[in-house]
Amino acid sequence: MHRALPVPVTVEAIAERIGATVHGDGRRRIARLASLESADANAVSFLSGRRHARSARESRAGALIVSAALQEDAPAGAARILVADPYAAYALLSQWFESLLVPVRRAAAIDPSARVDVAARLGAGVDVGPGASIAAGARIGDGCRIGAGCAIGEGASIGPDSILHPNVVVYGGVTLGARAVVHAGTVIGADGFGFAPSRDGFVKIAQLGSVRIGDDVEIGANCAIDRGALDDTEIGDGVKIDNLVQVGHNVRIGAHTVIAGCVGIAGSATIGARCMIGGGVGVSGHIEICDGAIIGGFSLVERSVDEPGFYTGAWPLQSHVQWERTAATLKQLPRLRQRLRGLEARAGEPKDSE
Amino acid sequence: MHRALPVPVTVEAIAERIGATVHGDGRRRIARLASLESADANAVSFLSGRRHARSARESRAGALIVSAALQEDAPAGAARILVADPYAAYALLSQWFESLLVPVRRAAAIDPSARVDVAARLGAGVDVGPGASIAAGARIGDGCRIGAGCAIGEGASIGPDSILHPNVVVYGGVTLGARAVVHAGTVIGADGFGFAPSRDGFVKIAQLGSVRIGDDVEIGANCAIDRGALDDTEIGDGVKIDNLVQVGHNVRIGAHTVIAGCVGIAGSATIGARCMIGGGVGVSGHIEICDGAIIGGFSLVERSVDEPGFYTGAWPLQSHVQWERTAATLKQLPRLRQRLRGLEARAGEPKDSE
Amino acid sequence: MHRALPVPVTVEAIAERIGATVHGDGRRRIARLASLESADANAVSFLSGRRHARSARESRAGALIVSAALQEDAPAGAARILVADPYAAYALLSQWFESLLVPVRRAAAIDPSARVDVAARLGAGVDVGPGASIAAGARIGDGCRIGAGCAIGEGASIGPDSILHPNVVVYGGVTLGARAVVHAGTVIGADGFGFAPSRDGFVKIAQLGSVRIGDDVEIGANCAIDRGALDDTEIGDGVKIDNLVQVGHNVRIGAHTVIAGCVGIAGSATIGARCMIGGGVGVSGHIEICDGAIIGGFSLVERSVDEPGFYTGAWPLQSHVQWERTAATLKQLPRLRQRLRGLEARAGEPKDSE
Repeated sequence: MHRALPVPVTVEAIAERIGATVHGDGRRRIARLASLESADANAVSFLSGRRHARSARESRAGALIVSAALQEDAPAGAARILVADPYAAYALLSQWFESLLVPVRRAAAIDPSARVDVAARLGAGVDVGPGASIAAGARIGDGCRIGAGCAIGEGASIGPDSILHPNVVVYGGVTLGARAVVHAGTVIGADGFGFAPSRDGFVKIAQLGSVRIGDDVEIGANCAIDRGALDDTEIGDGVKIDNLVQVGHNVRIGAHTVIAGCVGIAGSATIGARCMIGGGVGVSGHIEICDGAIIGGFSLVERSVDEPGFYTGAWPLQSHVQWERTAATLKQLPRLRQRLRGLEARAGEPKDSE
Repeated sequence: MHRALPVPVTVEAIAERIGATVHGDGRRRIARLASLESADANAVSFLSGRRHARSARESRAGALIVSAALQEDAPAGAARILVADPYAAYALLSQWFESLLVPVRRAAAIDPSARVDVAARLGAGVDVGPGASIAAGARIGDGCRIGAGCAIGEGASIGPDSILHPNVVVYGGVTLGARAVVHAGTVIGADGFGFAPSRDGFVKIAQLGSVRIGDDVEIGANCAIDRGALDDTEIGDGVKIDNLVQVGHNVRIGAHTVIAGCVGIAGSATIGARCMIGGGVGVSGHIEICDGAIIGGFSLVERSVDEPGFYTGAWPLQSHVQWERTAATLKQLPRLRQRLRGLEARAGEPKDSE
Repeated sequence: MHRALPVPVTVEAIAERIGATVHGDGRRRIARLASLESADANAVSFLSGRRHARSARESRAGALIVSAALQEDAPAGAARILVADPYAAYALLSQWFESLLVPVRRAAAIDPSARVDVAARLGAGVDVGPGASIAAGARIGDGCRIGAGCAIGEGASIGPDSILHPNVVVYGGVTLGARAVVHAGTVIGADGFGFAPSRDGFVKIAQLGSVRIGDDVEIGANCAIDRGALDDTEIGDGVKIDNLVQVGHNVRIGAHTVIAGCVGIAGSATIGARCMIGGGVGVSGHIEICDGAIIGGFSLVERSVDEPGFYTGAWPLQSHVQWERTAATLKQLPRLRQRLRGLEARAGEPKDSE
């Protein structure tokens, strides 16, 4: 359930926070930020698009963040908080509510069970959780929070005001920018997957590069971002990566690109800036995706994408029986095409331009 | 290799344990539970279906759990342990053998290297492994075993008799029911993936919801189950989840649903009760899968599924050369269909109802 | 950036190390191993195939490892280091450079914060990182390095000269061979996914088998390799596994097979020796892949593969609009085939052998 604020805030205070104007009772007290469906009279909710209009009209929210164009869809009696972009306003408000909800933080401290090497350099106000270890030569910027059980390798560098949740592993030499958020269990800087075949099996290629990550990057839980073979793996400013994502060695990801969960990016792929990569996508090695491309979920990007646009490749769901028939026929597709061509020739059709 | 019981048990004792009757030598001593192929005279095995009948006849097992209908397939000389459902009987027996195999457990204890906050509440008989940390306000039910290196966040709650294997991370406020089993490295309650676009890049949406997990839930290794944006992510009683599964924010999974490995479930998807989701499946966001649906491995569920049944969508494997031809032709499929229609019109065929 | 060697080496020393001959200035000093694109006069690079010839000619590398056949593509002025297999030579050289780059290792030691059970047996020169735990009966071979936060279960065995990076979890009874490399966050030996249906939900099948891993195996970050139900899960000598790979219970993988990232292998699948499994591949349970098979990335191996060769199954990427049309037509494929057959019959074509 939504946690209630220990001290409710007024509708006016909310409007001021997000730069909005109020229509209705600005002094109403609000204790929760809630979805349209679960809001009650003590809750503020938001309407971010016409497809939720019906839910908005039926909502019991005491206040609604809404655009002028959709304000008629506010539930009767609710205070309307008018703003140009309700979704962005919701994002800002969620951060404010979180800051009000989180229990008073104790002073930053290094837990006695943490192991910080004498040759590591920690900035001011750094918090290190139980059992975390920070190796020689590592640098942790001011205001960082290093969660329980994190392991920071030799010479790694974490920019200021970053949050590493528990059990994150940062290998030696890896660099993270300012305000990074890394969720639990993620591994940054493990060896890229490189082996040279030989008569006696594979010979390991030592991965001499590193990983360089820009500012304002968020990485989800249990991801694996490999260090480069010779050059570095690079992730640009503002990139957002969901859970269980693999980033191979020497991958480069441009600024403000968003990557959903379970994506696998093979070695030396280059992804442009402001791309959106859907969940479960695979990106083949050594290809390039241009700036601004959108890849639909579960697609394999097996070739370079040179033009911005929306791309997809995924088998649509069918009943299993129909799928079996379709899959069987699929394998005959080249032959079917040939037969079609034969019929056309016989019918005297002009040769298709295929 | 199968570990042998320190003290063998009789065929009769096994039969009693699983509510079966014995045909043959009930006093034979059994030290191992083994597959048909690797069983020897000291081992009990089981026959769970006709397709294993040949392996059963050729097995060297000293005793066989089998249904009355298939008892003729028992190897000559083996004691037959007759039961209605040999597979369920095997499951029960495996638990008994495990309890006999596991070395005597030491008394529950909090390892001196663990960090348990004074404001955490631990039930009776709780075991906390080396280096684990339990934050203020967390509640750990009676009889729980918290593995080495686990991190339990503020105000999280773990139901009684739960087992968290090493390095599991439970974020603040997350609730697990009774008898949970969570395998190593799994992360529960990391932030859902929510960002609002703005001119200056993405604005993080604080994830104010939590995760609520019912009773008797098992979760595999290195999964990531995100907390909700506003409402909670919910996993029902008896749900079983394999390894490396991603559950996005505000997903709801009904009771007794089974999810195989490497599945990715995007935000706000709803999966019904008693579903079976095959390995590597992707589930798109904001869709619903009804109770009792079965999704074949490697399928993308890109739309809601309203009727129970077996659904699949996955390209069948081909030789690479054939695949190249098929994939090239696939892209022409809409054009081929048009050409077919043209030929039919020319031939005076009645218009297909497509 | 490439780290520079603290003390540069000569071209001759490099050649001697990899069994090569030098054409040009053998006394030139080299401080870096670099890609063709980022090499400078102090760097050695390598040319491993004709498709990189142009990059080689334009490179600023001071020395180039190259085959006799391609030596004309070396940049003007660069020392040529001639060798039969430049890629394998690069692999060897990368290992040498790494050994020169890594700061002098402190003597092997057990960190005071590590918890090593009195009934564990550690070989000579074993290094145990902060917060790692080693349970009773575990055996750690000579020269092993156990990273921070690793948890080694009861009776597990790690062969000599193995490296476990931080936060690896090895469950009880698991066996790793010599010279294993396991990257951070990987979990070996969690329970296989086995439940027997019953009226009251699923009954857990205790996983009594274990995991046996051969010599010279490398496993990437955040993988999950499950223990067997009755028999063991087995991974052969020299197998290389990338990140985020799931290996189900009772899977067997033959020697020197290579498995790329994000692969999911379902229970009881058997993969032969010297196979190459591409990224994101799914392998269904209870099937067999023969020795030497190559599976293209993102394919589902839903049936056994009996002949060595290159196999693929993955939808090619399309623009989203084209994909929508193709996907809609795909579902009609069996019907299209029928209509084609109808037209052929009408045209008096001989019946296709399909």
